[in-house]
Amino acid sequence: MSERVLVDQLQSREDGPVSISGWVETVRDQKKVQFVILRDETGAVQLVNPATRPDPDGGEQDADALALTALISELSTGTFLTATGELKHDERVKLGGVEIKLAGLEVAAAALPETPIASDSGLDKRMDWRFIDLRQRRNALIFRVSTTFEHAMRSYWVENDYVELHTPKLMSTPAEGNAELFALEYFGEQTAYLAQSPQHYKQMAQAAGFGKIFEIGDVFRADPSFTSRHATEFTSVDAEISWIDSYDDVARMQEELLATAIQAVADKHGAEIKELFDIDVVVPTVPFPRIPLAEAREIVAARGYAIPRTDGDLDPEGERQISAHALETYGHEFVFITDYHPEIRPFYHMRNAETGLTNSYDLLFKGVEITTGAQREHRIDVLEAQATEKGLSLEGLEHYLDFFRYGVPPHGGFGMGLARVLMLMFGQDSIREVTFLFRGPTRLAP
Amino acid sequence: MSERVLVDQLQSREDGPVSISGWVETVRDQKKVQFVILRDETGAVQLVNPATRPDPDGGEQDADALALTALISELSTGTFLTATGELKHDERVKLGGVEIKLAGLEVAAAALPETPIASDSGLDKRMDWRFIDLRQRRNALIFRVSTTFEHAMRSYWVENDYVELHTPKLMSTPAEGNAELFALEYFGEQTAYLAQSPQHYKQMAQAAGFGKIFEIGDVFRADPSFTSRHATEFTSVDAEISWIDSYDDVARMQEELLATAIQAVADKHGAEIKELFDIDVVVPTVPFPRIPLAEAREIVAARGYAIPRTDGDLDPEGERQISAHALETYGHEFVFITDYHPEIRPFYHMRNAETGLTNSYDLLFKGVEITTGAQREHRIDVLEAQATEKGLSLEGLEHYLDFFRYGVPPHGGFGMGLARVLMLMFGQDSIREVTFLFRGPTRLAP
Repeated sequence: MSERVLVDQLQSREDGPVSISGWVETVRDQKKVQFVILRDETGAVQLVNPATRPDPDGGEQDADALALTALISELSTGTFLTATGELKHDERVKLGGVEIKLAGLEVAAAALPETPIASDSGLDKRMDWRFIDLRQRRNALIFRVSTTFEHAMRSYWVENDYVELHTPKLMSTPAEGNAELFALEYFGEQTAYLAQSPQHYKQMAQAAGFGKIFEIGDVFRADPSFTSRHATEFTSVDAEISWIDSYDDVARMQEELLATAIQAVADKHGAEIKELFDIDVVVPTVPFPRIPLAEAREIVAARGYAIPRTDGDLDPEGERQISAHALETYGHEFVFITDYHPEIRPFYHMRNAETGLTNSYDLLFKGVEITTGAQREHRIDVLEAQATEKGLSLEGLEHYLDFFRYGVPPHGGFGMGLARVLMLMFGQDSIREVTFLFRGPTRLAP
Repeated sequence: MSERVLVDQLQSREDGPVSISGWVETVRDQKKVQFVILRDETGAVQLVNPATRPDPDGGEQDADALALTALISELSTGTFLTATGELKHDERVKLGGVEIKLAGLEVAAAALPETPIASDSGLDKRMDWRFIDLRQRRNALIFRVSTTFEHAMRSYWVENDYVELHTPKLMSTPAEGNAELFALEYFGEQTAYLAQSPQHYKQMAQAAGFGKIFEIGDVFRADPSFTSRHATEFTSVDAEISWIDSYDDVARMQEELLATAIQAVADKHGAEIKELFDIDVVVPTVPFPRIPLAEAREIVAARGYAIPRTDGDLDPEGERQISAHALETYGHEFVFITDYHPEIRPFYHMRNAETGLTNSYDLLFKGVEITTGAQREHRIDVLEAQATEKGLSLEGLEHYLDFFRYGVPPHGGFGMGLARVLMLMFGQDSIREVTFLFRGPTRLAP
């Protein structure tokens, strides 16, 4: 068998014999000529075959040619095959300016004739048949971009001497002491909980003296909501660093990280994202704008939107409004909102001694929150008091609190939902579109 | 506050004022002079302070000097602090040839005076206090090496156009249809299972036309065993590629991957691994030796070891024997064992039409299995027959089998336990030593 050539290598290749492998996107079975559009992970190419039909008058014909024509007539969409033939450059061919005159086809696995979904099927139906849905170029691109984005983030961290962690997802106690926890029987005696975040453990790494750490891994939320932004399992991008002076050290790391990673995406995929999604990937400048929450609420009010929430936070429309403000005022798609009231923050956020507000931020991207970051409270007495104030049992937090009793540096970090970033980057309405296999309250398969 | 300098930057820095941050490793509180060994994530340095004690005769003394001396006398091991002072190069100082004459100390968090473990405490006790255990230079190095190793693997894949996946860990059906599954109630109505491997989903990515994929992620096994090689949760390194001709295409990718990643480890950490573990990191040459299982058993028998297993597989001592053979014969720490009988392989391994053996391999490293790889059966009729033969219910495999009904390329891949590789690389007896936080049947905390 001759060596497989990828479709995106064809244009720069000289005319001559070639072998490509992929799946059938369409077949045009005309009387005198047959066309097959074959797609692989790099592109699509037209295969052409002069049809040889059985002679109605019973005249003799080339058996191989008859067989090839019959094989093409029977090809179903999605059939994976290897095609051999003669590559020919031809400007008139719209698809890449090349075509392959077929010499032979070897079917690896024939698809059932009826494809259960079309590209315009409903989202839920497409998720039932996600492996077919992902054959679409637009959908596959999302995961190539995600690969580039993640690798650029990890490269940034590795170049800056961070340690990569894989924290456990099975825990004996809830990580944040609240609801939305999946529980399971653990060898008949214990109950294990699925981690909602690596929060405890990335802080533990600070007490271990690791200095700077990151993790990109799965987290779980038994969250019954069906919104377009929530999932019961998702990929969390986390980092935590020691010896910070302020949460702003965390924010500065995150903005550098994102600028670097989005630059990598723009460089490698900008043109294709523009072509397929009509979106310009804007590489953000640093620093990102920063607006204290109280000021953000005033700005939103001045824009004529009355936030209905009474807890002092922004609501989704408030987030869109303040993002619109940041775009109009600073030309920026990102904005940090800072200084949240402790009531709407977890107990482990450090509080400013003067204002009483937390040393924390949310990061909004194109109007949606993608991150919470903070300096953590590392003083055990203050931490215990804040936990008690929130009504948490110190006993349930025993293992976590131990991390602070035997020495710990000042530290802080952030957590970021990968799918949210991708959803916004691609202008999608739902994280389902940018998740390989979405998991929700009624979605555990395939 | 002056800018933090890392300990490993001190040697190349000129004498003068400096600020460093880390934790107290030891204090030598002599009458006339005090020494503190301070460690950070890059090394350790000696701090020195001429002691100023209260004058027994009540003479007046510098209050700041008295306070600093008293503070040092009270320092407990593990206390995290920032030290400022004058850096001085001095050849007589064994620890790096530098010391810092203290001007001031700022304690970030004082450790409780009694450290609950020592470096020679038992493994279980050390795991109870893992965050203290990880402050040891040897233990921390393992995770820096793991970071380098993983990043080199991902870089290899990204440079070769692989797509990174995050497959779901919550599944509606068992992935491989056998025992050792964790189950949990899912919103009161359904049962979810925790993925034992990404096997189904990395194959799904092949049906989706992704071509080449990788994932480094968590998997779960409700395995009640207490061996040094097993855990209930571990990090699995997985890859899967399309359009292979044979399982050997997978083996070739894996050996290139490992040679590249181990080269990166040797380059960056070889000297430190030698210093702390007395182990030479050997960069493997490619190709790795390959020995069919039947031949391996003969070689082991000829070496005088009678394998007690009757199923045709190697046992742990057999694996050590064949690895010793590979080292003696080929000078190689790795060896592929190939062509396993279907009875000891999962149903989805493709079988050789002539021999009836599976197109699969195990990879041994220093005498221990670290990987199973295989070409997968992609023909739906054969796959169904092999599943039925293994006593599996096709109904339970419905979603998986769908991947093969709508077209799929020939494909194969491997799964590799990250902790096993690290355990062997560092000559450790247990994966517990190389796992950030081990999870076993009786170990869910911290």
